[in-house]
Amino acid sequence: MDWFEGGCPQPSQAHRAAAEARQKVLTKPPGSLGVLETLAIRLAELQATDRPRAARAPIVLFAGDHGITAQGISAYPPDVTVQMLHNFAAGGAAIAVLARELGAKLHVVDAGTLAEDDIPGVTTDKPRRGTRDFSCEAAMTHEELVFALSAGRRAVERARSGGADIIILGEMGIGNTTSAAALIAAFTGRDAADVTGRGTGIDDAMLGRKIEIVAAAVAAAAPNVESLALLSRLGGLEIAALAGYIVEACTARVPLVVDGVIACAAALVADAIAPGVRDLVIAGHRSTEPGASIALAHLGLEPLVDLELRLGEGTGAALAIPLVQTAARLLTEMATLDDL
Amino acid sequence: MDWFEGGCPQPSQAHRAAAEARQKVLTKPPGSLGVLETLAIRLAELQATDRPRAARAPIVLFAGDHGITAQGISAYPPDVTVQMLHNFAAGGAAIAVLARELGAKLHVVDAGTLAEDDIPGVTTDKPRRGTRDFSCEAAMTHEELVFALSAGRRAVERARSGGADIIILGEMGIGNTTSAAALIAAFTGRDAADVTGRGTGIDDAMLGRKIEIVAAAVAAAAPNVESLALLSRLGGLEIAALAGYIVEACTARVPLVVDGVIACAAALVADAIAPGVRDLVIAGHRSTEPGASIALAHLGLEPLVDLELRLGEGTGAALAIPLVQTAARLLTEMATLDDL
Repeated sequence: MDWFEGGCPQPSQAHRAAAEARQKVLTKPPGSLGVLETLAIRLAELQATDRPRAARAPIVLFAGDHGITAQGISAYPPDVTVQMLHNFAAGGAAIAVLARELGAKLHVVDAGTLAEDDIPGVTTDKPRRGTRDFSCEAAMTHEELVFALSAGRRAVERARSGGADIIILGEMGIGNTTSAAALIAAFTGRDAADVTGRGTGIDDAMLGRKIEIVAAAVAAAAPNVESLALLSRLGGLEIAALAGYIVEACTARVPLVVDGVIACAAALVADAIAPGVRDLVIAGHRSTEPGASIALAHLGLEPLVDLELRLGEGTGAALAIPLVQTAARLLTEMATLDDL
Repeated sequence: MDWFEGGCPQPSQAHRAAAEARQKVLTKPPGSLGVLETLAIRLAELQATDRPRAARAPIVLFAGDHGITAQGISAYPPDVTVQMLHNFAAGGAAIAVLARELGAKLHVVDAGTLAEDDIPGVTTDKPRRGTRDFSCEAAMTHEELVFALSAGRRAVERARSGGADIIILGEMGIGNTTSAAALIAAFTGRDAADVTGRGTGIDDAMLGRKIEIVAAAVAAAAPNVESLALLSRLGGLEIAALAGYIVEACTARVPLVVDGVIACAAALVADAIAPGVRDLVIAGHRSTEPGASIALAHLGLEPLVDLELRLGEGTGAALAIPLVQTAARLLTEMATLDDL
């Protein structure tokens, strides 16, 4: 079954050409704004407009729990995921501070945590509480996967209803760097040792175990070549929701800024589900997790900032938003040489 | 004559220790906010406070003209400097767009352009119109230098009167990358060929000539070892004003974000005039001008972003300000583990 049918709209060549021409006549030496020039041009072609905007930039954060935590691959216990949902809603988490700084709405979706009850300020949209342990069995059934992908699709509508020029994507889930590493290995063909990192900060012994688990799970999943089958075996519910979100946002032509290794893994999966989605994705930052750089390179994406973050939540994507907003404003608001 | 007497206040060890301790108990894995953590700690020790702030970040831009342009080292004629002063005041220049985006006040100082009259929206504070051609004679007299340094000092008071947690420093001046290259060569001992770049975008032939001029001027200035003597020989009036600004801001304990190669050259000179000033300086971005990286390395500074900018005006410093603001807010506003 194909969850996604149809295709991604192509970037607008006409708007690209217009933006390129405008960059050349603004009051600056040509090319002197560097990456900000190419970024504004890219935004113009993606949004298919002469006046790209990034002012309205809601944050969408998906949370999920992971059966793989039973294997002792995280420095923190799984209850931290639900504790952090409360912290997001209360405004004390890093991404909540960033949302205030940006004046951005923070949408938090429980896409599959262990929480038994709804949490005020959090949208619950999950097929089950946590994934199964993917070192023993598939993380989720096909039906659960489709539910999670569709939870992503549903979140697009909520985020867009408040106005969205661009979306900041983040996540939370103890154990999810293990799932992300497995997906990145499966979708890029790289070794587990290359893509697996320390997540929240595990020691060498735990990292060795994490790499073994990722390698074994990817090997066991290897007979599958189909994207959705790999995702249901190795994925997380929040990663599936992110992938569904990215695919759906593509058809709506709303650019996305992805965060660290989890969001990059989701982008990799999304591009496999709907080839071409990568065109819509802007990489916010280079996480210190090795899998993030491998996923970005596979997608041909170069991140905007490199500040050694490894928190997730969307923090690295949110950090890059002022750069995108500035790039758009420079293109639209600078004087031209004729104005002098 | 020493223009600066006294010394720079030391960063506060007590506030540094308090900020480091707080970073460890915020709701995130220790170290997971990477450079943002060290940046907030640095701001706390510089501002000597438990609650570092970067919300009020005025931009101070000094402009000057350069006699060295007679040697044909720039892609643009000198009148562009004054044209751009009008463009800053009218809001059409890149830095004016950034000021609006940041909600920051833009202070523009004519520290030595060729303008004959005052320009509305620009503070005129200059000892002369443009420098002399430093390939033939000293760029300015000692008295003119002291005037320009003091123009920087006077600008600190104006910027602080409106409230300033941190200052964004920029400049404008056709020909000023040549002066900056000469100063960087003189103050670091590096070869002219290493520190000289294409500025606004000159071709290979012009670059070769620019390198020869820098090399010859630095060699001619070499008998001088005294900072102010080197600055009066090779400097620009806006570079001297920037250096004066940096020294004065140090005593007032207001951190600074420097921009590209010109501001980096000024920071190098300022640190020679008042050793220790470098502690107060935050590097906003890595300019593509080679001299900027050499000056930053000499000062032991690592820039926050690298987006291939080479415009000046303070654009690369202004771009980095949201990162500094975010770093400060994360330290002060995030919940602690005890809050969960």
